[in-house]
Amino acid sequence: MYDLIIVGGGPGGVAAGVYAARKKIKVALIAESFGGQSLVSADVQNWIGTKSISGFDLGQALEAHLRAQPDIEIVDGDLAERVEEVFGSGSNGAGAGGAVEGLRVTTKKGKVFETKYLLVASGSRRRKLGVPGESEFEGKGVAYCSTCDAPLFGGKVVAVVGGGNAGLEAVLDLLPYATKIYLLERSGELKGDAVTQVKIKQHEKLEIILHATTTAVFGDTFVKGLRYKDGGASAGMTGATGAEKELAVEGVFVEIGALPNSDFVKDTIKMNAIGEVIADPVTQRASHPRIWAVGDVSDVRYKQNNISAGDAIKAVLNIYDTLNKE
Amino acid sequence: MYDLIIVGGGPGGVAAGVYAARKKIKVALIAESFGGQSLVSADVQNWIGTKSISGFDLGQALEAHLRAQPDIEIVDGDLAERVEEVFGSGSNGAGAGGAVEGLRVTTKKGKVFETKYLLVASGSRRRKLGVPGESEFEGKGVAYCSTCDAPLFGGKVVAVVGGGNAGLEAVLDLLPYATKIYLLERSGELKGDAVTQVKIKQHEKLEIILHATTTAVFGDTFVKGLRYKDGGASAGMTGATGAEKELAVEGVFVEIGALPNSDFVKDTIKMNAIGEVIADPVTQRASHPRIWAVGDVSDVRYKQNNISAGDAIKAVLNIYDTLNKE
Repeated sequence: MYDLIIVGGGPGGVAAGVYAARKKIKVALIAESFGGQSLVSADVQNWIGTKSISGFDLGQALEAHLRAQPDIEIVDGDLAERVEEVFGSGSNGAGAGGAVEGLRVTTKKGKVFETKYLLVASGSRRRKLGVPGESEFEGKGVAYCSTCDAPLFGGKVVAVVGGGNAGLEAVLDLLPYATKIYLLERSGELKGDAVTQVKIKQHEKLEIILHATTTAVFGDTFVKGLRYKDGGASAGMTGATGAEKELAVEGVFVEIGALPNSDFVKDTIKMNAIGEVIADPVTQRASHPRIWAVGDVSDVRYKQNNISAGDAIKAVLNIYDTLNKE
Repeated sequence: MYDLIIVGGGPGGVAAGVYAARKKIKVALIAESFGGQSLVSADVQNWIGTKSISGFDLGQALEAHLRAQPDIEIVDGDLAERVEEVFGSGSNGAGAGGAVEGLRVTTKKGKVFETKYLLVASGSRRRKLGVPGESEFEGKGVAYCSTCDAPLFGGKVVAVVGGGNAGLEAVLDLLPYATKIYLLERSGELKGDAVTQVKIKQHEKLEIILHATTTAVFGDTFVKGLRYKDGGASAGMTGATGAEKELAVEGVFVEIGALPNSDFVKDTIKMNAIGEVIADPVTQRASHPRIWAVGDVSDVRYKQNNISAGDAIKAVLNIYDTLNKE
């Protein structure tokens, strides 16, 4: 029986692994890879203490820090698939009537771990447009985090795809940097907060394009433009499915939401409407007394690398306290 | 009028400065120095993503990251001394009856800043024994953070000074590493949680010395021992003030509490019984709607460098949201 299984190899998982190993508890970490969503970033400028680092190098640094700990078992190239409760032998015999004594974590490759506690730090993945060029230019003009990447687009023309709050906030982040911003929304109206709409609409730099369905991103070594289908009133009037138009942009911020990697615990703990694990903001404990969650998979209000790392340390120190009070 | 004044040059202040500057808000940071309490550490092994770095080098890295931001005013070598509310001109004229429009921050050197919002990231200082040798050997055997430094004392004999929860937890942290641990408490009994007392008392490595008042730390390049006055029953019976005894140890963990650097905001916001600023754990907002707090000066349950950095980013993103909704 492990004291702790950590799921995730981003900043949260690695921070948890480093702290747990140093506490000399029996711990294993399961991760497909190291570095989290920043892995594809060409230039991370907001990992605190480091002026500039590629996402790849950040992933390497995190992995190296983790592997420098002598007392952690690292299960890489694998993913957690399922979590179940383990019952102790109650008065009626093994498996019948006993209290919950731990958790059983099964991986995609069929490995099984029994553990007292579990830390879910499995992150999320950004919703993608699924159009030609999007993957090809990720980190080369296609971006998914305006807080992280807006400063890289100084003096450039950019497009933001998505008219919800995330899209509106991306526009706010880009206004001091970009020379022109197109905001594309599929439906006939912006969905984000009215107050933010008022705020951004007063800027001449911004051009809002409604009824716009992005169909492609193109470029050479870097993004050069975006194509979209115009499904608006004028297109409707002709009875056509909409003309395809082109915008010359050097950046495309895709802001259409995120999908938390929380499937493997969906039967065990409470989540909010968008599938984020609900965690106590002081201790990071989830609704199950043996499970904690941090970072982008959790309902933490803001999602950033250093936030995941900090909250993971809160979680491990709380797990350690809990272990010491058993 | 600034949008934001940040007070503090530790990981929290620097993280806030980097994020605020990148958001292009009007921001200034006031700090006596950079690096926080880790500055004196010989070897920091738990700054996530960095296997090992001296406290001095970590401070340099933080300062360099901050100074790489083009849009932040840095006021160093100074300290915030006082914070007052600034009232707008109400119906009765300037300064009379107007709503609170901002805050006025005055520094020790007499500089004055007016700001919409304030982030308190001024840290804390550890309570010290105030005995000869303590300062001299700080970072050379004298330590104040067992979570950080316990792994550096593998195979060594150490003393923990302080029988409250912090002292008991330091013993727990040291048990897997040290070969012998003396726990010194001035009074006649340990004060920490009973369950932790039971847990540590079963270890043969631990020797508890009650009625022990530490009088000196000594060594050459590194700590070699500790002297204490024995004020216990046997000393009492002879009527003496207590014999001075010596312990041969290579480490001394001083665990007698911390003093938050919160004096300059004591009239403005709510604090808990030990002077920590009470902050909302989701947004880090303090009791005053224009003030946020993070890190060791706040009532966050666990105090660690990466926790301060993460929570500072939550605070800045929340301040930015608030600014955008004004």
